[in-house]
Order: sequence, then structure tokens, then C-alpha cells
Amino acid sequence: MVKTEHFLEVRYYETDQMGIVHHSNYIRYFECGRNAMLKEMDLPIEKVEEAGVMMPVVAVDCRYRTPARMGDTLRIVSMIDTMPTAKVVIKSEIYNQDDALVCSGSVTLGFIDAATRRPVRCPKILVDLFADKI
Amino acid sequence: MVKTEHFLEVRYYETDQMGIVHHSNYIRYFECGRNAMLKEMDLPIEKVEEAGVMMPVVAVDCRYRTPARMGDTLRIVSMIDTMPTAKVVIKSEIYNQDDALVCSGSVTLGFIDAATRRPVRCPKILVDLFADKI
Amino acid sequence: MVKTEHFLEVRYYETDQMGIVHHSNYIRYFECGRNAMLKEMDLPIEKVEEAGVMMPVVAVDCRYRTPARMGDTLRIVSMIDTMPTAKVVIKSEIYNQDDALVCSGSVTLGFIDAATRRPVRCPKILVDLFADKI
Amino acid sequence: MVKTEHFLEVRYYETDQMGIVHHSNYIRYFECGRNAMLKEMDLPIEKVEEAGVMMPVVAVDCRYRTPARMGDTLRIVSMIDTMPTAKVVIKSEIYNQDDALVCSGSVTLGFIDAATRRPVRCPKILVDLFADKI
Repeated sequence: MVKTEHFLEVRYYETDQMGIVHHSNYIRYFECGRNAMLKEMDLPIEKVEEAGVMMPVVAVDCRYRTPARMGDTLRIVSMIDTMPTAKVVIKSEIYNQDDALVCSGSVTLGFIDAATRRPVRCPKILVDLFADKI
Repeated sequence: MVKTEHFLEVRYYETDQMGIVHHSNYIRYFECGRNAMLKEMDLPIEKVEEAGVMMPVVAVDCRYRTPARMGDTLRIVSMIDTMPTAKVVIKSEIYNQDDALVCSGSVTLGFIDAATRRPVRCPKILVDLFADKI
Repeated sequence: MVKTEHFLEVRYYETDQMGIVHHSNYIRYFECGRNAMLKEMDLPIEKVEEAGVMMPVVAVDCRYRTPARMGDTLRIVSMIDTMPTAKVVIKSEIYNQDDALVCSGSVTLGFIDAATRRPVRCPKILVDLFADKI
Repeated sequence: MVKTEHFLEVRYYETDQMGIVHHSNYIRYFECGRNAMLKEMDLPIEKVEEAGVMMPVVAVDCRYRTPARMGDTLRIVSMIDTMPTAKVVIKSEIYNQDDALVCSGSVTLGFIDAATRRPVRCPKILVDLFADKI
């Protein structure tokens, strides 16, 4: 399994009038986490895109447990435990500074050719990246 | 079943460098749709909150089919087919101007007392609202 | 002078923990207003971009007067009173449903060639659009 | 003068279909920068708010120079050179990893009593914070 952690602080504009982080932002934090994973593996998403592959999101789900608030430092855990094929599934968990589970979910990404905009299989640069780790 | 439709146009800032609407924004469109539903039923969310009840999101899932783009007018269909109890589930579908399914999903909301921040059952004003419609 | 009006409702996720619309969102509303202006003039921004011209923002300023809140319907007034040359300046004012001035400001846009990413003068399609109106 | 630096990485969802960071996001980065300043001075914004004072934005301006892109690490420089009274002005500059100026601007904040929502002078906790530094 590939598993990485990424830390980020709640931003003021991410809160809503309930005084907590708006639920849509955790979906964005998931993205921050998985892009940090790619960067850590020396293949940042912008390099993937330069290689002609885009990775649109196919599905997402999230269960919210403990609301995050301004002042919180969040830990986003991103996990891939199955070799990417036509799609890749990233499991994500977010914890606050007290190690309380803020939310958990999964995101499924597809692969499309940037030029033709048609689905392709997971590109070799990514397969190679994960090959000996999953 | 309660079922409403709400229309909105894609905003430029909602697109990302793939040239399509960023996936997190559909989660926000779902919210626009269900808040428009409440408004249409003469109980806008700000009135619910004034009555001392907040409705945090407990879970969300979304499957993406056809990307929305700048220039698209989207139709958000929001549906409630089960009487709210401790939670309420809203099913949502988004279609573009060509009636292509952009995405579909569901959102589960809980109810909390604004003062104590503790979970409560669906408040009477909402139960009454849905009572004869579901 | 070209002057258009565009209406939009405050969205829940646009509020912050002060209980008002986050200040950054008015900058986005300005964009919604000017893009609605272009659309009304039958030249939506996506057509401008298809013609190979992009319009990045060069400068923005905004003065905030009355905070907007959830439930508000906002009227965005967009005005162009000077013929676009290397740049175009759009003055914007936002009013709420009680006609109170929410904020006012101006946005300066440049023009760049989408292919070369170099500055160009205002494209003819836009000059023609405004020619007899300013 | 109080001057602090805060680093952040461009997030994918902050880009738009021009392939650059949407201009509204720099206004948000400014906020991240000044909140990091307050945190560094041991008075994070949530503590200011707990003390009953809210700091709404009164005015903002920004001039954009070099677009930021996915993969960029930005340095937000926040500066206060005048003692806060009824308002406080924060000058901000954002640089990329090549030290190119991305944008610069200023933000004026007011102070309001959280309970009454009426303007107040800069609270003592903030005056004391800046007293010997400006």
C-alpha cells in the first residue's frame, strides 16, 4: 500500500456560518492530500498533465465525523492499496490535531488523453511509480 | 416524494485547468439545489437556523458522468423520498442544457441544536413541511 | 456607457464564520456580473476564448459597505464607460434586495493571445461589440 | 513595521480554465498571510474572535503581475507599518519560488463588536500586540 500524510491548516474562508469548515472543502482537502502524495513520489500532477494525461474525478464519497474549525491543523492520510488500471481509488482520512477523525472517504479517478479527451488506461509513468509499492 | 428543480449557470471561477468544472463544485451545487427546495417550500435554511437548528452534512457521495463547462446551464434536481427523522437524505441529479446527466449523488444531513451543538431529531417545522408531501 | 444588471442569490458556502459573505466572494460576483454582460451582448467569455483571446485580471479593488447574508438576492451592476484598448476597466456595484450598497469596485482586464500567452490589444470582436455603445 | 512571511502551495482547485490561479484566490492568500502573522504573534484570529471582536474587510486592492500556476510555492509577505486605530491596513505581496512578484495589494480591516455588530476601535489585545513593534 502507498500511504502518505499531508498537513494543512484550516483557512478562514473555508468556514461557513455554522462556524465550521464547509463540507465541500474536505473534498478539496482530499485532493490536496493525493496531490501531495504524487509530489512526494516525484511525479506531481502537473507533470502527469504535461505527459498528456488528465485525471478527472469519477466518484467521490465522504463521511463526516468531527467538524474542523479555524485554528485546526489537519492531517490528510491518503492511501492507494490497489494497482491502478482504468481507474485508481484513493482512500482518504482526515484527522485533527487531537487525532480525532474529522472525515473519511474515497475518491476514484479516471485517466483521459488530454488531446482526445478520451479515456485511457493508467499511464506507464504512474504504473511504474506504484509498481513496487502496492 | 418532494422533488424540485433549480437552475444555475457555471461560473468561470468554478472551472479548473482541465477546462471543466472542478468536481468539488458539484457538491456545492447540490447544496444550492436543496436550499432552493427549502426556499420554494417557504422555509429557507436561514429561517431553520433562526429557529435554532443547524443542519450539518453527515455524508455525501457523487458519481460524475459528463463534465460541465463554462457556458453550461445546469439543472439541479433535488429529491426527498423518505420522511426525515434523525437525518434527512436528499438525492440529487444534475443535468446540462442538453439533458445529459452531469452527475448524481446523495447528501445526508443531520440536525443539531444551534445552542448546545448536540444532535436533535428533525425539528417540527421541517416535519410539518414534508408531512403531507412524502 | 454599457451597463448591465445581473441577479444572484447568496450561496450558503459563500458565508464564513462571521455569518456574512466572505469578502473574496464579491470579487467572484463581479466576475459573474461582467460575464453575464458579455453573454447578454451575445459574446459569452467562452466564445472570446474560442477566438483565441484570454482576459486575465490585471487589477481589482473593492470597498465593502453592507455585508451580504444568506437569503439575500444581490444585484450586480457592471459598467464600461471607456472604449477598451490594451485593457478594459469594468466598474461594478453590488446592491442587496433593499437597495443598500453592498460593495463597489473596479476590475481591469488585459488581453492575451491564448497560444503565445503574450499581451495583445482588445480583439476586434470585442471592439465591434462596444463600438456603438460607449 | 511588523512583517511576516507565510508559504503555501497552489492547490489544483484554485486554477481556472486559463490554466492559472483564479484572481480571486490571491485575495484569499492575503488572508492566509495575515492570519499566519497573527498566529505567529500568538494571537490567532480565532482568539481575537473569542475575545468578542470580529475583523471584517473594509477594502481590498490587488495588482496582478505574474500568474501563479499549479506546482508553484508562493511566499506571502504581510506588512503592517501603521498602528491600528479604527482600522488596520495590511500590505501584502506574493512571490513565487523564482522570486517573481505574483501580485501585490493591501487590505483594510475594521473592528466590530461581535455581540452588537457595531464598529469599535482596535481592541487592546491587538494594540498591545503591535505597540512595541511598529
